[in-house]
Amino acid sequence: MLGERRCSVPYKTVHRGHHHFGWDNGLPPVAQVSPGEVVEFEVVDASGGQLSPASTAEDVARLDFARVNPVTGPVFVEGAEPGDALVVEVVGLEGSGWGWTAIIPGFGLLAEDFPKPHLHLSRYTQEGVEFLPGVRLPYSPFPGTLGVAPGAPGVHSVVPPREVGGNLDIRDLGEGARLYLPVQVPGALFSVGDTHAVQGDGEVCGTAVESPMRLTLRFDLKKAAHLPRPAFETPARAAGGPGDRGFFATTGIAPDLMVAAKDAVRYMIDHLGREYGLSPEAAYMLCSVAVDLRISEVVDAPNWVVSAYLPKGVFL
Amino acid sequence: MLGERRCSVPYKTVHRGHHHFGWDNGLPPVAQVSPGEVVEFEVVDASGGQLSPASTAEDVARLDFARVNPVTGPVFVEGAEPGDALVVEVVGLEGSGWGWTAIIPGFGLLAEDFPKPHLHLSRYTQEGVEFLPGVRLPYSPFPGTLGVAPGAPGVHSVVPPREVGGNLDIRDLGEGARLYLPVQVPGALFSVGDTHAVQGDGEVCGTAVESPMRLTLRFDLKKAAHLPRPAFETPARAAGGPGDRGFFATTGIAPDLMVAAKDAVRYMIDHLGREYGLSPEAAYMLCSVAVDLRISEVVDAPNWVVSAYLPKGVFL
Repeated sequence: MLGERRCSVPYKTVHRGHHHFGWDNGLPPVAQVSPGEVVEFEVVDASGGQLSPASTAEDVARLDFARVNPVTGPVFVEGAEPGDALVVEVVGLEGSGWGWTAIIPGFGLLAEDFPKPHLHLSRYTQEGVEFLPGVRLPYSPFPGTLGVAPGAPGVHSVVPPREVGGNLDIRDLGEGARLYLPVQVPGALFSVGDTHAVQGDGEVCGTAVESPMRLTLRFDLKKAAHLPRPAFETPARAAGGPGDRGFFATTGIAPDLMVAAKDAVRYMIDHLGREYGLSPEAAYMLCSVAVDLRISEVVDAPNWVVSAYLPKGVFL
Repeated sequence: MLGERRCSVPYKTVHRGHHHFGWDNGLPPVAQVSPGEVVEFEVVDASGGQLSPASTAEDVARLDFARVNPVTGPVFVEGAEPGDALVVEVVGLEGSGWGWTAIIPGFGLLAEDFPKPHLHLSRYTQEGVEFLPGVRLPYSPFPGTLGVAPGAPGVHSVVPPREVGGNLDIRDLGEGARLYLPVQVPGALFSVGDTHAVQGDGEVCGTAVESPMRLTLRFDLKKAAHLPRPAFETPARAAGGPGDRGFFATTGIAPDLMVAAKDAVRYMIDHLGREYGLSPEAAYMLCSVAVDLRISEVVDAPNWVVSAYLPKGVFL
């Protein structure tokens, strides 16, 4: 328990230059922290700085994938041993005020429907993300990638999440959330990246409102917790969000959850086009940043229901 | 639009005796309603009256599956034609005060882990569902099954949901929700059943708090809407729910959403056992009625994340 040691002034900063590509327990730590300590991280955006507020869709087509998803770290946590849980509390995030959302060929839930690159730029403040004219999203920042080094040697891609965390893209890991990560190597070797200004459950087009940020984390240990995978605690969603006006939801119904998820999102894209005049590309990106995928039922064999929830309050 | 005709006094009641098993567009309608009309339905519980407040696990083992999931109806909606959407507004539900939750062998997300029958009985009021000592769930009633007759002839099982709706088990179809169903036959032939006092997204053990109820629905039509599948609108969740104290969530991470869903629920069952001393069976049933399955990300190939959210406020 942190108790009286609770303090949100960071003792140290891990700078953006201290980032790496892929997970590797052979990487030397760039900082050492104690349980209870608060640390600031500077996080580069998921393009690794290849996209800027001046970029276009052509820059998406030219992305060098060897340089995407950098993570800042690794940080050595004193006393962390295999079998422990590293507790990571998200103390705060400070966004840069701009973000990008892209359709990247070959990537995303509906890659087969959207073969061409697209780029969408947004500005945001504490009051919200100005995503499209008449469409404002809540500013709900969180790091998409939080993880520790795998026990297995070598370099592991940063794209897929795994049992030690990583690219989890769990939208509820914002301020006040607490993530529990299974430690597999001494010192845990924690890194963080992929900060998002807002995202829906699913992140369906493959990108959120991707944005460089500073964030502050507090570390702790739960000894010998032997977690199989990450778990987390998240506070209640703040009142005044876009769900306060209720939701419009579409369904996918199929014997395969992936098919059901795709169908629910396609249905929502059609709805957004018909009701709001959005292009399929704008609608797909809006789904990625604002629509939540829920598994409504997974027991009424042979058909499962995935529902895509659009909070009505995103439309001004 | 309903406009000034809006009224929540039902003009007629469809009695519980008027129920059928399976969907069949050859069934004669038991009532005829006009768009804008409010109708009361008496709904038998999902066991078709085979379980009562005096039942035990042996009665679950003896369930006659030819008599499960009765639906009350069908109701002929004047003017409904193939291609229209039938709009069903949930005006209100009146619960019977008791409900059952069961583990039924061969049924449910974790059927392989739970081969034996179990039965759990609950009492509820407007204030909540007394699920276990120290565990109170919100009373959030809704009908699990709402559908219209398929265009294809013959009898279609009531268990799986399909493009015309049916056993959707969408927990947000409670009071104030509006469901849009694609009409495939003249008059739509709407039926309703499977009322639940509360359920989590996923309904993972295969049953919710199953309970006979009276419910009141208002019908309308959206002509020539040509919906591919059901869609719905649902109001904001009421403040004061168990999520107001935040959530504890587990994750499943796998290249298959079904595997990820199973893993997330198994992890939550372990958590409930370790932290609260619940038996695996009690924990599995609690997951079914209180835990929500969300697709956190479905793009970070090859691993998807399904998270199981437990609202902390269910523990008193």
